Amino acid sequence: MQMNQQKVQVGIVGGTGYTGVELLRNLASHPAAEVIMITSRSEDGVAVADMYPNLRGIYDLQFSVPDIEQLKTCDVVFFATPHGVAMSMATELIANGVKVIDLAADFRIEDLDVWQQWYGMVHTGADLMPSVAYGLPEYYRSKIKQASIIANPGCYPTSILLGVLPLLKAGLVDETSIIADGKSGVSGAGKGANVAMLGAEMSESFKAYGVNGHRHQPEMVEKMNEITGSSVNVTFVPHLVPMVRGMESTIYVTLTQEVSQAVIQSLYEEAYASEPFVDVMPAGSLPETRMVKGSNMCRMAIYRPAGGDKIVITSVIDNLVKGAAGQAIQNMNIMFGLDERFGLNQVALLP
Amino acid sequence: MQMNQQKVQVGIVGGTGYTGVELLRNLASHPAAEVIMITSRSEDGVAVADMYPNLRGIYDLQFSVPDIEQLKTCDVVFFATPHGVAMSMATELIANGVKVIDLAADFRIEDLDVWQQWYGMVHTGADLMPSVAYGLPEYYRSKIKQASIIANPGCYPTSILLGVLPLLKAGLVDETSIIADGKSGVSGAGKGANVAMLGAEMSESFKAYGVNGHRHQPEMVEKMNEITGSSVNVTFVPHLVPMVRGMESTIYVTLTQEVSQAVIQSLYEEAYASEPFVDVMPAGSLPETRMVKGSNMCRMAIYRPAGGDKIVITSVIDNLVKGAAGQAIQNMNIMFGLDERFGLNQVALLP
Amino acid sequence: MQMNQQKVQVGIVGGTGYTGVELLRNLASHPAAEVIMITSRSEDGVAVADMYPNLRGIYDLQFSVPDIEQLKTCDVVFFATPHGVAMSMATELIANGVKVIDLAADFRIEDLDVWQQWYGMVHTGADLMPSVAYGLPEYYRSKIKQASIIANPGCYPTSILLGVLPLLKAGLVDETSIIADGKSGVSGAGKGANVAMLGAEMSESFKAYGVNGHRHQPEMVEKMNEITGSSVNVTFVPHLVPMVRGMESTIYVTLTQEVSQAVIQSLYEEAYASEPFVDVMPAGSLPETRMVKGSNMCRMAIYRPAGGDKIVITSVIDNLVKGAAGQAIQNMNIMFGLDERFGLNQVALLP
Amino acid sequence: MQMNQQKVQVGIVGGTGYTGVELLRNLASHPAAEVIMITSRSEDGVAVADMYPNLRGIYDLQFSVPDIEQLKTCDVVFFATPHGVAMSMATELIANGVKVIDLAADFRIEDLDVWQQWYGMVHTGADLMPSVAYGLPEYYRSKIKQASIIANPGCYPTSILLGVLPLLKAGLVDETSIIADGKSGVSGAGKGANVAMLGAEMSESFKAYGVNGHRHQPEMVEKMNEITGSSVNVTFVPHLVPMVRGMESTIYVTLTQEVSQAVIQSLYEEAYASEPFVDVMPAGSLPETRMVKGSNMCRMAIYRPAGGDKIVITSVIDNLVKGAAGQAIQNMNIMFGLDERFGLNQVALLP
Repeated sequence: MQMNQQKVQVGIVGGTGYTGVELLRNLASHPAAEVIMITSRSEDGVAVADMYPNLRGIYDLQFSVPDIEQLKTCDVVFFATPHGVAMSMATELIANGVKVIDLAADFRIEDLDVWQQWYGMVHTGADLMPSVAYGLPEYYRSKIKQASIIANPGCYPTSILLGVLPLLKAGLVDETSIIADGKSGVSGAGKGANVAMLGAEMSESFKAYGVNGHRHQPEMVEKMNEITGSSVNVTFVPHLVPMVRGMESTIYVTLTQEVSQAVIQSLYEEAYASEPFVDVMPAGSLPETRMVKGSNMCRMAIYRPAGGDKIVITSVIDNLVKGAAGQAIQNMNIMFGLDERFGLNQVALLP
Repeated sequence: MQMNQQKVQVGIVGGTGYTGVELLRNLASHPAAEVIMITSRSEDGVAVADMYPNLRGIYDLQFSVPDIEQLKTCDVVFFATPHGVAMSMATELIANGVKVIDLAADFRIEDLDVWQQWYGMVHTGADLMPSVAYGLPEYYRSKIKQASIIANPGCYPTSILLGVLPLLKAGLVDETSIIADGKSGVSGAGKGANVAMLGAEMSESFKAYGVNGHRHQPEMVEKMNEITGSSVNVTFVPHLVPMVRGMESTIYVTLTQEVSQAVIQSLYEEAYASEPFVDVMPAGSLPETRMVKGSNMCRMAIYRPAGGDKIVITSVIDNLVKGAAGQAIQNMNIMFGLDERFGLNQVALLP
Repeated sequence: MQMNQQKVQVGIVGGTGYTGVELLRNLASHPAAEVIMITSRSEDGVAVADMYPNLRGIYDLQFSVPDIEQLKTCDVVFFATPHGVAMSMATELIANGVKVIDLAADFRIEDLDVWQQWYGMVHTGADLMPSVAYGLPEYYRSKIKQASIIANPGCYPTSILLGVLPLLKAGLVDETSIIADGKSGVSGAGKGANVAMLGAEMSESFKAYGVNGHRHQPEMVEKMNEITGSSVNVTFVPHLVPMVRGMESTIYVTLTQEVSQAVIQSLYEEAYASEPFVDVMPAGSLPETRMVKGSNMCRMAIYRPAGGDKIVITSVIDNLVKGAAGQAIQNMNIMFGLDERFGLNQVALLP
Repeated sequence: MQMNQQKVQVGIVGGTGYTGVELLRNLASHPAAEVIMITSRSEDGVAVADMYPNLRGIYDLQFSVPDIEQLKTCDVVFFATPHGVAMSMATELIANGVKVIDLAADFRIEDLDVWQQWYGMVHTGADLMPSVAYGLPEYYRSKIKQASIIANPGCYPTSILLGVLPLLKAGLVDETSIIADGKSGVSGAGKGANVAMLGAEMSESFKAYGVNGHRHQPEMVEKMNEITGSSVNVTFVPHLVPMVRGMESTIYVTLTQEVSQAVIQSLYEEAYASEPFVDVMPAGSLPETRMVKGSNMCRMAIYRPAGGDKIVITSVIDNLVKGAAGQAIQNMNIMFGLDERFGLNQVALLP
């Protein structure tokens, strides 16, 4: 531990949502980072612990109105804000040597035309893109080390990219016919008042949504193409699960050559052998989202049903941790040369 | 209504489980059928309403030890039993003119070698198979009318067959590459004491199961082949949803020729235009399982994401009603020439 | 059945909320009433079945802007509106012979000073109060028959009054020390967008609320005093349960004289012997809210722990049915001389 | 931190249940203790991480058959076993200087006649009782320091004793009329296969249970009497909440003298001012169980509704942490002179 050196000074912009409280929860146990400010226009002056009583006794912070001069005193600023905020403040921050980690989507898609089409707003940060790394450490670690800005991945892309990339990179499957059936708990919809996310609406029910198109689809497609040099076709259907946390993706791909399940299992185990937050479970395992609840782990299992030409990968994460705040902290650790596991050693809460 | 004629006399064998209580709940409002006996070895003498207090004041029945002579006095006997029971009693019942509706799997698969392989027991009812109809009224109604024995379909096959058959029958999709991603509430696992189905185990978690093979896969494959004369290949992965009731299946098929989404929508609307229990929702709809909770409806929507070659169908049922007891009653109504909707006019409970 | 006579013509004002859809669900099976209009300013022109797809195929109604002239053509108008609406329209309706059933609180408390203090608005319907009956049929049936306006009781008062009144009326308990610990599912909070009722907020958590005072407390106190002629003191603490439907109240009273549990059991059984919607369960029973889910029943059990001086009553209802829409229909049936059970024969959905 | 000294060597007997996995989860972050063995007759040889995959990568332990000689090599042994096991092994362990912490009920009630009546077995450890301390640190800390055996308190007694004792000790309330209305998540019932605890049974429902008597009642009564020297009368009714973790108790007491709410608030704040795991929330707060999910905190609020003579305390804990494994670790820390917070710094998981 770097007890003797100065702790990384952390600012959080827009910390009233679920990713904000998750940053605080995880950073509370970080031995080398310290949250020094957290902003919210609407909650100015409110104690963090009044909004999130699980933090009573842990933090003595109050929300404050975001102030760019104050934020410049941080080493890193996390944006847990609506889309569009980070790009409006990042230029000045990085010019002052402050690292930026955006948990929203501002920098997730390099093709800004595609981005504008899906996010319905003008992208004003084209000049920032060369400073950006896509914050999926398992595939972009070296870029993350060099970057000034991190585009923290979407939750679905995290679980699906981790699940499918070893096979795609190995060139063993038909890249034009990837099916990703994703399922998310309701915390993924955030803390905004929204009738469809009321307990009386979402409990005891299950549904697909966004079948005709979801923003995370172009994001995962771009990264698959970038990493494998191919031109993939992904059909992605997200679903809403009546639970708070957790995300499971079942991915279906078609083998283009004969290869045994055992070989594929080894391929995955080797791909992630040194990854602290990816767990390739033994053949036959059935990952459950509760196996990662509250933790930064991604657990997955690989199947070849009936020895046919389809490979099925099931991959689980906590959408608020590896799918958001935890991965953001992992990225921070990489940027600052810290142990990647700092602040992320929570054991999943089971039961 | 046939008020003047004798009501259909109903017996239920093995009525202590969830399909048993669902038969009772739905039959309580049936104007032309009457439950006269319900059996359970373990609960002999116990009032039905003591085990299922929602039935207090509705039924004055007690569980009794199954007695074949008594059962012969019924017009129809529902088997809500473990696999293997119905085939052991059906011969004598149908010889006496009693109709048999099996909610277990004894008669679901015509290829008895396949059946024995998946169910791990010897099939002793080969001679009964000519008397059997597969109880999916939308595709086997005329056979059901003639049959002595109904193989009430599995819940997953019900939701998936209804969802995919119009496209398969039309010959518009690649029959060798069907993906069916199914999700079920926990009542599908029945009322047996089972650690994995404890509330503390299944709540707030989501998982795939049976990835390497599930008994409902050969069942749906056989019926698809039978109905379309083709030789399909189905990859089926079931999942467990943290809710009591409800089943959603997301089905992915690949078009083999250009056909617009509107044409496909019409194809489905026409296929089910006269069906009382299949609702093809308008294009763009998002079926939720709660839209059918407690009712015998199957609701579905059809998508063609981004105008690509994949068609996505999402189909919802209540696994205990259209997926079990409700469909069984629908089959009884057909067998006895009654209005198919008798006993099945419950409006789904929402919220 | 009164098939030959004209069905009761029903209007619903403000039908977009949960009590609105529950009125529709239950009235769908009513043999002698017919919903002819349902109003909503915000949803004018929207089909009821588009907002509530469980009603697809059941109703062919659209929401319309409320129009007093149109409403006058009804025999009865249910107000499923915010507090204050019914009192603004009731005068004109009852002057035209239209019965009014208010599911909000406008007429629940006769002491209008108390009402104004708890509801924070001016009560403009003092002259209407002589036409009002409190719609708890078990205690106000004869008044309901004569009334033009029904104050449909609050959900907590329904479950608590039914639970405690036999003992209070019998003069067996200390009226100054009644403890009522109430628990409600989240549908009781309605369908308004409200952060505290988000699935991600209320799931997997339990809390008391309104400890310092809840509007239902003066309502139940007034009725207890009115019915028993005493001056009760009730400590009432409501709690929020992570479920959609259901309400349980545990009531603690202190005996003022020796009386056996068996005698008290008989007292309750006799009090409700002829009530179609109150079920005094056998001694030792444990009522669960799922035993009444979707039904108009109130089930209860009475205990005398360790033979001490405390009597404990546990009483369960479905907050949306006996606690709202079902009781409103029961009141309508009484007002129009119909069988009280019409439209209310749904068997509780269990599991 | 005592990095230089030998870590406390921990054994766990019967670690397959929920309290077992919670001991492991919390001890994983303990800087001065180390789990060296965990026993289970039925799971001999199974890796802990195979049964509890949330522990994959955290522990490299296997379950083993309990062996008293092996257990003697520990510094402390936790019993996460059925009632009766700890008392059968404790004599030999403490004779060898091994501390014993029993998470079952063997040593919770000093009056062994009462114990035998409630637990239905012979108590064979009378001679051990002088070595026992009741493990509620806030009231028995000095005894715990000296004890060889800890009776880790029941979950309900923990939440209720912490909630009511400041008022009782101050002599401000009627000790003969205490009402404790408790509510627990289903993990409190353990991991045994039990139909009533199936997800399909307990979800979306709420009920009272054990109304005529629950083992935790004599336990809390004995401790109230012991601590306050009075003779209390407690009516305790537990309820089952459809959630996994969490316990809330609403306690109703009657003031015997005039004292303001503010004074009572101060009384509580002072009583727990130096307690690391009791949080008296500000007046008007509404504790929710999710505010302590996964953490060892007890949070509470105190009310005096309408300025009447009733005081209402609402107290929340995680039944598996402060109500079981967390409190056991807190007791271990006290026994070994360690910082009481070691291993217990988890921030509650919210949302």
